[in-house]
Amino acid sequence: MPDNRSYVDGARVLADLNALRGIGAYKTGVHKPTLSEPHMQSLQWLAQRLPAAGLDAEIDGIGNVLGTSTKPGPKLLAGSHLESQNYAGWLDGPLGVIYALEAARVINAEPEANGTVEVAAWCDEEGHFGSFLGSRSYVGALTEADIDAARDRSSGRSMRDALRDIGLAGRPRATAERGRHVGYLEAHIEQGQTLESGGLAIGVVTSIVGIWQYRITFEGEQNHAGTTRMDVRRDAGLALARFCVEIDERFPRSCGPRTVWTTGRITLDPGAPSIIPGRAEMLFQIRDDEPDVINRLEALLRDMAAETSARGRCTVAVERIRTGTPALMNAAFQQAIEAACVVRAGGRSIRMPSGAGHDAQVLATIMPAGMLFVPSIGGVSHHWSENTEDADIVTGAEVFVDTCRRLLAG
Amino acid sequence: MPDNRSYVDGARVLADLNALRGIGAYKTGVHKPTLSEPHMQSLQWLAQRLPAAGLDAEIDGIGNVLGTSTKPGPKLLAGSHLESQNYAGWLDGPLGVIYALEAARVINAEPEANGTVEVAAWCDEEGHFGSFLGSRSYVGALTEADIDAARDRSSGRSMRDALRDIGLAGRPRATAERGRHVGYLEAHIEQGQTLESGGLAIGVVTSIVGIWQYRITFEGEQNHAGTTRMDVRRDAGLALARFCVEIDERFPRSCGPRTVWTTGRITLDPGAPSIIPGRAEMLFQIRDDEPDVINRLEALLRDMAAETSARGRCTVAVERIRTGTPALMNAAFQQAIEAACVVRAGGRSIRMPSGAGHDAQVLATIMPAGMLFVPSIGGVSHHWSENTEDADIVTGAEVFVDTCRRLLAG
Repeated sequence: MPDNRSYVDGARVLADLNALRGIGAYKTGVHKPTLSEPHMQSLQWLAQRLPAAGLDAEIDGIGNVLGTSTKPGPKLLAGSHLESQNYAGWLDGPLGVIYALEAARVINAEPEANGTVEVAAWCDEEGHFGSFLGSRSYVGALTEADIDAARDRSSGRSMRDALRDIGLAGRPRATAERGRHVGYLEAHIEQGQTLESGGLAIGVVTSIVGIWQYRITFEGEQNHAGTTRMDVRRDAGLALARFCVEIDERFPRSCGPRTVWTTGRITLDPGAPSIIPGRAEMLFQIRDDEPDVINRLEALLRDMAAETSARGRCTVAVERIRTGTPALMNAAFQQAIEAACVVRAGGRSIRMPSGAGHDAQVLATIMPAGMLFVPSIGGVSHHWSENTEDADIVTGAEVFVDTCRRLLAG
Repeated sequence: MPDNRSYVDGARVLADLNALRGIGAYKTGVHKPTLSEPHMQSLQWLAQRLPAAGLDAEIDGIGNVLGTSTKPGPKLLAGSHLESQNYAGWLDGPLGVIYALEAARVINAEPEANGTVEVAAWCDEEGHFGSFLGSRSYVGALTEADIDAARDRSSGRSMRDALRDIGLAGRPRATAERGRHVGYLEAHIEQGQTLESGGLAIGVVTSIVGIWQYRITFEGEQNHAGTTRMDVRRDAGLALARFCVEIDERFPRSCGPRTVWTTGRITLDPGAPSIIPGRAEMLFQIRDDEPDVINRLEALLRDMAAETSARGRCTVAVERIRTGTPALMNAAFQQAIEAACVVRAGGRSIRMPSGAGHDAQVLATIMPAGMLFVPSIGGVSHHWSENTEDADIVTGAEVFVDTCRRLLAG
């Protein structure tokens, strides 16, 4: 391994990231929802730069950008995404895409290179229309009916209309050629403070948690808030509040060391100040990298619902609306990232799970996959103030490109 | 007192109520929001019928209908409202207006009558744009600035725009002439089951509860639902749920025998399934007819908020956004209703407070006021299935007209 080579152009990496920040800028971050005008401009920006990295560019029928090569030899796929959450940060997504672009520019131009880096930007990792629609399309896990049903969670606009308006309707969808790639590598900001607080440069991802999501619905009796005595009320909102508190008390006794759970949305129906809510609904999420833990917690959730219903005031229904199998990252990929970090960043790495979902979990279903994290200032994520020190961005790029070389060398 | 007179035309009362049900009909009820087209049609319907009751009709600049007389002698004001809650019942409001119209038709035509019944339909008792805007305008407790600020709670449309679109902009607002009336009488369905379950015909209202309303806001820290460990979270939604449960546990130890409290709306911010809510808000209401009880409960609420804030995870702010002083109904009015019930309904009456707010509480600030209730099937209220037996409606009208005669006789 020629460990003394680098050729990573740190200034070029930072300039590219700032160019993408300039498209759909919002304060120091970006507002670039999936298939919005600034998202499409970002895809075109990337497609225009891929030929200089020795790749043929294509924007496919679901909004993925793919840079592919016809050269023989081993190929590594690398990438991330270019859309953002609403009014969010500049690095969540673009960092991994620009690292992949830089790796392709450096490695694909080396006469002595062992193979080729191919680049991908997956559409809608941020879930405006669904769950990992772009990468799922690429691995063959997305049907035309899934696309027909997809709607923007903010505006309600259908994905078909969005694809048509942006000029992508009717294009073929790119799909993975089995055996083409030695694997998939993705970089991302950490979205937590482990690296920053430990003075570390690189997080070596061991697994990506599964996300299970539930709609929990409480049915009571809607009534007048002035004329209905407290002792005869069947208040669905109060039943929901009790359920949230009970989760907080009982889950810690059954969870794993890294389990997290969140009630992100609560709706009372009809939601008027003078009406006792007859119906209430909460969106509830559990994340863990152990399916056994999730299964145990889901059973607990259903037991709690049955106990509440049995008390007679309100009935509770638990509906699972999203299932995400935890994804293990490939062991050889983890070793390659650690070895690259020894050479490029003084070995300042730590193995850690990813609490957030990433396209790597989808790619991992059809090929070896790995992920590395770079530090995030204050652990801020999904907010326009999200940031990483320039020096950490460049160090991450060095480790990323070195890792690509090691993986292509096999 | 010529107790053997009646002249109430039960069929006419039922026909009028059904005519109003036909304007803005929804299932067996009505959808007649304040200043909507069907509401305005209902106001015009009433205005057209007032001359036959010996009254001059006026629709004023806030959407009140007033039927007034130039005859000398004592005058009693009677009425209720014609708009409805959204997709609600046919009697909540119209019953009291048609009883008042019937009383005017019967009494104002009697040569030997002791005085005149004047009729009012107060705009927006149901609070689409505010709180008792019509009756408050009449008693002189509503400024032009209040109207400028009023917006439809569903659509956000300003009241000024709504008044202009319906053709009422620029009209003068009718205001009470002090000393003109011996008092104000209003009838309403009970919105509870006390009368029905007791086999009673008439509820004699002793007081109307005060409604205090609060916005309770929880501030925590918005964060990623996957990457933020449970032990460092500052989840504003969970703090809110704990607060609701704590209210339910601590209020019963400080409340009065008839106090009710309700959390009608909960909002988590940003309300996304993968984001820990950084901010949460609840609309909370307390009703009682004892100001001391309300004051004690508000103090408890503020203590609880301070205790939660002191625990350090989330801060809680309690903001009172509505204050309603309890209103006592006039003793002589209560006696007149009871005496009329002895003659017209076999004395099947009971004294009871009103847990719901009514325009009578506003009129009570400037003149003696009284209210009577008729039974409501199943106690259903603010729902399109709200209903009362025809026989109970007619009996209520007999008692109402008889009460008017007694009050005019002094």
